[in-house]
Amino acid sequence: MRGLQRRLAEFAAARDWGQYHTPKNLAAALSVEASELLEIFQWLTPEQSAGVMADPESAHRVEDEVADVLSYLLQFCEVLGVDPLAAVAAKIERNETRFPPAP
Amino acid sequence: MRGLQRRLAEFAAARDWGQYHTPKNLAAALSVEASELLEIFQWLTPEQSAGVMADPESAHRVEDEVADVLSYLLQFCEVLGVDPLAAVAAKIERNETRFPPAP
Amino acid sequence: MRGLQRRLAEFAAARDWGQYHTPKNLAAALSVEASELLEIFQWLTPEQSAGVMADPESAHRVEDEVADVLSYLLQFCEVLGVDPLAAVAAKIERNETRFPPAP
Amino acid sequence: MRGLQRRLAEFAAARDWGQYHTPKNLAAALSVEASELLEIFQWLTPEQSAGVMADPESAHRVEDEVADVLSYLLQFCEVLGVDPLAAVAAKIERNETRFPPAP
Repeated sequence: MRGLQRRLAEFAAARDWGQYHTPKNLAAALSVEASELLEIFQWLTPEQSAGVMADPESAHRVEDEVADVLSYLLQFCEVLGVDPLAAVAAKIERNETRFPPAP
Repeated sequence: MRGLQRRLAEFAAARDWGQYHTPKNLAAALSVEASELLEIFQWLTPEQSAGVMADPESAHRVEDEVADVLSYLLQFCEVLGVDPLAAVAAKIERNETRFPPAP
Repeated sequence: MRGLQRRLAEFAAARDWGQYHTPKNLAAALSVEASELLEIFQWLTPEQSAGVMADPESAHRVEDEVADVLSYLLQFCEVLGVDPLAAVAAKIERNETRFPPAP
Repeated sequence: MRGLQRRLAEFAAARDWGQYHTPKNLAAALSVEASELLEIFQWLTPEQSAGVMADPESAHRVEDEVADVLSYLLQFCEVLGVDPLAAVAAKIERNETRFPPAP
């Protein structure tokens, strides 16, 4: 993941895109891409949504949008110095206390 | 990252949340959390948005929303068998061709 | 609707909020509020989602988020001089041709 | 607005789309369209965002996405029996108390 973050930073630098990559713009782009992922599912029943990878075209769309979401998330974390894996680990620990397991 | 994905899966299983975790619902939750991240920035100028980690309270909010976005993305990828890092690597390669570096 | 648009404009002016109401910020706020509306439904089955107004607390939440979405949409249209009703009418006309009725 | 709501309902009925129009799906579609509106602005500076209607192509895109957002909002309100204008009026009244005007 660190390697991908570096490649994304180099990719943006080589295109002089850093000027656009404010935290605010990257947060907006992340939310736009997350919506494009949701768009694939918006009219599907829960059952149809579970079978979405069986169709090669939808499978490719899903992978493509996942890539966009994760790319913007990594770039957002890079510009703000946030460690996303540490953030998830900390959240899981807090949630262990907030939501005790079912008996 | 694989370790976190496993912990998230165990966490959901222990609370019997699997029934809610259809790909459609996880995509909706991911997009809702991405919007909560954007909410932190919505009224800020570009300059203010760059300084958001200087305030401990905003910094914590940012880390918390990053954790939520990545958690739902990992759970979404888990239920559909998508490898998010491979998806980003493939996308970077496609984009190298689509967007040649500035001269 | 014109009356509400005027009241919203006066409300913002009286609080000196105009400086925050760039089209970009209002579009971000609109999308954040639309996600808050979606949040109410994210874990519900299609059937449960149809019954959401039966519970007074959810009904109130739904109405509150509808109000937020429409308020930001009206303010966005106001600052850019867009007539939202004319835009919908034009779109319906285009769609009549794009999607012929089922036989 | 009531007239548009009726036309949208007839349009959907003539295409047998009612089966897809659960409140949950319409809330998802509304949030997807609000993100498409935001997408137009995501890399713009606040100043550029204020000038977006000067370019006929962006102006058309903005009007088109406004139409989509309002169409799904009206359809959502129709299936749940929510009066969107009454909801905004009630919200403005609550907000008059919550946020007193600047002195």
